[in-house]
Amino acid sequence: MIGVIGGGQLARMMAPAAEALGVGFHVLAESAQSSAAQVAGRVTVGDHTDLAALQAFADTVDVITFDHEHVPPEHLRALQAAGHAVHPGPDALIHAQDKIVMRRRMDALGLANPRWAEISTPEDLERFGAEVGFPVILKTPRGGYDGHGVRVVTSGADAVDWLGSHPVLLAEERIDFIRELAVMVARSPMGQTAVWPVVATYQQDGVCKEAVAPAPGLDPELARRITADVLTVAGALDVTGVMAMEMFETPDGYRINELAMRPHNTGHWTQDGSVTSQFEQHLRAVLDLPLGDPSARTPATAMVNVLGADRDDLYCAYLHVLAHDPQVKVHMYGKSVRPGRKLGHVNVYGDDAAAVLARARHAADFIAGVDTDPEPERKDTA
Amino acid sequence: MIGVIGGGQLARMMAPAAEALGVGFHVLAESAQSSAAQVAGRVTVGDHTDLAALQAFADTVDVITFDHEHVPPEHLRALQAAGHAVHPGPDALIHAQDKIVMRRRMDALGLANPRWAEISTPEDLERFGAEVGFPVILKTPRGGYDGHGVRVVTSGADAVDWLGSHPVLLAEERIDFIRELAVMVARSPMGQTAVWPVVATYQQDGVCKEAVAPAPGLDPELARRITADVLTVAGALDVTGVMAMEMFETPDGYRINELAMRPHNTGHWTQDGSVTSQFEQHLRAVLDLPLGDPSARTPATAMVNVLGADRDDLYCAYLHVLAHDPQVKVHMYGKSVRPGRKLGHVNVYGDDAAAVLARARHAADFIAGVDTDPEPERKDTA
Repeated sequence: MIGVIGGGQLARMMAPAAEALGVGFHVLAESAQSSAAQVAGRVTVGDHTDLAALQAFADTVDVITFDHEHVPPEHLRALQAAGHAVHPGPDALIHAQDKIVMRRRMDALGLANPRWAEISTPEDLERFGAEVGFPVILKTPRGGYDGHGVRVVTSGADAVDWLGSHPVLLAEERIDFIRELAVMVARSPMGQTAVWPVVATYQQDGVCKEAVAPAPGLDPELARRITADVLTVAGALDVTGVMAMEMFETPDGYRINELAMRPHNTGHWTQDGSVTSQFEQHLRAVLDLPLGDPSARTPATAMVNVLGADRDDLYCAYLHVLAHDPQVKVHMYGKSVRPGRKLGHVNVYGDDAAAVLARARHAADFIAGVDTDPEPERKDTA
Repeated sequence: MIGVIGGGQLARMMAPAAEALGVGFHVLAESAQSSAAQVAGRVTVGDHTDLAALQAFADTVDVITFDHEHVPPEHLRALQAAGHAVHPGPDALIHAQDKIVMRRRMDALGLANPRWAEISTPEDLERFGAEVGFPVILKTPRGGYDGHGVRVVTSGADAVDWLGSHPVLLAEERIDFIRELAVMVARSPMGQTAVWPVVATYQQDGVCKEAVAPAPGLDPELARRITADVLTVAGALDVTGVMAMEMFETPDGYRINELAMRPHNTGHWTQDGSVTSQFEQHLRAVLDLPLGDPSARTPATAMVNVLGADRDDLYCAYLHVLAHDPQVKVHMYGKSVRPGRKLGHVNVYGDDAAAVLARARHAADFIAGVDTDPEPERKDTA
């Protein structure tokens, strides 16, 4: 029995992998209506910050893993101390939970960080801005996701309000990037690893909107370097499970943006586009099963998220999309509509990246009720 | 909410399709430990021959469909009369439930039956045997599956015991076939249809053991004729959902062996080998959603069942298989081991039919603990 803490769509999409592998699947969900609770074979409703709830849940499963990175590290250590298998473990997970810990570690590994600084006062930020040039990206070290906890600032004064509730902030130079890239790796406790092709990603309002695999026209030498680097990170951090590394492509290579230690939006294309999906691979890794082949099945796969718009009822549009393109693979999350909310995604695969992306955009936006395809925006300006 | 009557592996493998389509999934299962009950978002334990249980279940779902064909037709009519959507309906389903009804209808449609007769006395069987030549295949019209209710007989006296409990039996000439074939079609209430490629199948002890898609070397004209004929059957019988037609390939074409109106063992290859799996397609059809593309994704896909052997603990062998072939797709049913029981299957896809079949055989037999690959046997001699 595998136990997943968190009932979001990532846990939901692990359920089919557990079914195929023949493994029991138990979710600790926020509510009985949450995305994964609708589909899991076993569900417990409970709070992931409540140690007693976590301990009771842990007693029912063989391995604990995660839908999100919000479980307090001290609780994970308590579970480990009680003899429970927690993958990824808190020593690895902290690098996805705390952006300052992550930056320090990437520096120590000699990997490609943007220039960054810890900010305790407005003067610190003023100094950093003078050094790297405003605007600067300011982040809360913990708790950010999908554009929350990230802002673009132009002076030290812009840090005042956050500094009231956070003793330390992370400031990063604003990278003048060509595009955003992401790569996913899986690693098992026995140390086996598998890396999927590097993908190109597009953000809209701070939320991952699109991914194309493999990244069209990516320099093979850069792809090789990124693959080697993400293996370095996974090994150095002793990651178990899948990890995503989000990056900015730059004229001289790339810079690391963020790490996520769980299945990731930029890996959803693998469900239909690769031999082994990120969800199956994550379960294989945390169960210490041999990993599957991460190769792409076709020359190009595009993933586009269905983001909530003004229309509440998606059903008619959904019918239209299934009828219009019988090859589109729809993945809906069982969520009610809220503007900007991730409601699902579509995958389309084929021979040509531009063609599959156009089809996936049409399908996703039509389901959501978005009239036009907006231009991709920078994640860090949201 | 879709409701599936029966908690076997076919219902189990519909669950991932419901997850992706964003549809609720409720199973009426024989027990809380049954294959589908382990993975379904909602489970009711109940008896599929108990009308009250069926009615209570029907009240919780929008559409009823099936894991098996054992629900009494009169119960299905009662559910329909109470306003419930039942797909496939009893008028279609009877052709998969009653082999004599099926033979009559195939004759009426001018399709390729073996010669057959209704047998009420040993003398009837003697007469039929004299006409077509013994040995003859004798079947109970209802209730047979996986070789049960089928025997090879050499004289009228061989019918005596079955005639004690069955007023009428079905006798069929023994077809001297080249190999067995199967084809699957999906049809929605709006009349949309989709046909997967014809596959070659192999039986062992009356149980489907292997399928290769598409059937290697099949005459394109015969494939075209089979595709047209299965569309004729689906339309004439007003099938909703997926239907399998099992056939014997003969020097002059083919003969119909059996029909099944549900996802079928010979369609498991579609999970990994075609754009739309039979499980997704079945749900799309019974929900009257537009159907997906049934095309094969690669030149060849092989499915081999994991059939229970002497070994109870499959885990070590399972690990070996995942490590040995990282491209093999394993589908386990969550069942305890019994000799000959279907415990799971593996799919392997690639460019060459012989190569993927060899890999799938090795994987499935190694998991089960079978030392060698036995020669395929005739289903009707089991």
